[in-house]
Amino acid sequence: MKLYGYWRSSTSYRVRIALKLKSVDVEYIPVNLKSGEQLSDEYSEINVQQSVPVLELNNGNRLTQSGAILNYLETEYPAVSLLPADPKRRALCHSFAEIIATEIHPFQNPRVINFIRSEFGAKERNIENWIHHWMSRSLTVLESIAQKSAHRFFLSDTPGLAECYLIPHMYSARRFKVDLSPYKQLQYLDDQCSQISVFQDAMPERQRDAPWEAQA
Amino acid sequence: MKLYGYWRSSTSYRVRIALKLKSVDVEYIPVNLKSGEQLSDEYSEINVQQSVPVLELNNGNRLTQSGAILNYLETEYPAVSLLPADPKRRALCHSFAEIIATEIHPFQNPRVINFIRSEFGAKERNIENWIHHWMSRSLTVLESIAQKSAHRFFLSDTPGLAECYLIPHMYSARRFKVDLSPYKQLQYLDDQCSQISVFQDAMPERQRDAPWEAQA
Repeated sequence: MKLYGYWRSSTSYRVRIALKLKSVDVEYIPVNLKSGEQLSDEYSEINVQQSVPVLELNNGNRLTQSGAILNYLETEYPAVSLLPADPKRRALCHSFAEIIATEIHPFQNPRVINFIRSEFGAKERNIENWIHHWMSRSLTVLESIAQKSAHRFFLSDTPGLAECYLIPHMYSARRFKVDLSPYKQLQYLDDQCSQISVFQDAMPERQRDAPWEAQA
Repeated sequence: MKLYGYWRSSTSYRVRIALKLKSVDVEYIPVNLKSGEQLSDEYSEINVQQSVPVLELNNGNRLTQSGAILNYLETEYPAVSLLPADPKRRALCHSFAEIIATEIHPFQNPRVINFIRSEFGAKERNIENWIHHWMSRSLTVLESIAQKSAHRFFLSDTPGLAECYLIPHMYSARRFKVDLSPYKQLQYLDDQCSQISVFQDAMPERQRDAPWEAQA
């Protein structure tokens, strides 16, 4: 299989973690979002959505949208499961992931930031406010949900779907200089994951398309 | 079970369709988003996210986030399935839904509109541009995906997950006066659904918390 992605895209980062947790090897094909490669005719033929990630299966079928890809991997590679067996706990993991996917990520997407800049004349200070506002609002909710879990990872003793979403967004929060000190349990989960080689290998700085000055 | 929702909330609408497709009866508890009931202390105890929908199970457990709720219903009430059996087609349905959940809905959420108004001094014309921009962008992508399906509904001869997401967003698009004429296949799917009593019963205007002047 092939994974089209970009080193710093948090949706690509989610899929990288899941693939590594499940020990599924793929060929990584970088798409340079910074230079606009996703808008090229060639890439638009691969994904009409002009976005990453895309998981290309061995039969040539291409799957888009990180949540759909994670769901596919969970069904097709069930040996290492990313979800609890209990349906109510499973729903809580999905809900945790969905808050990140629908209430944090859309607002930090580069095309949204660019639109705010051009449409509303937003300055850097306004952009920062915008990102911090949505991040802090949702991190507060995620923290209160996570605090109810007394496990090493979210609802479990092994990392899973919640961590696939959380870790890339803790990375983004640091990149956007969000004060993470109020989110003790999220920091704990982040710290637990940072000690595991799978999460280290999935880090943006470890990807071959990271610029050399960022590479770890 | 109980469903906390609001007549015009498109995420509540998604869950209403799924419940009705699966013939699962629930007690409907309206939460008045317009008057700010979701921010009350009483409701915040029910859902710390201060949002709808919430599905309260018979044992008192509460599930949040529409996608997580739909997933739970699919697992627990499998007799009428909302997804194809084939994993690749299933991933395509999930991807279709995810585009709506992450690339349309977040930008039309009232709290986002209010923030744009207060933070960027956006006028009604700017708000309309904002909503139309994100809706049209994603509807174009959804149309191109839907055109590849030659079925009565998306990828199938029965309505499912894709329609649970699409129909509420076609309703929103009309509400926000988006020109739908370029989206022939989406209009076809919308029209197919509008002829089915399940979809008629799930309509915002048919809910008991719709104001009398809107009631159908």
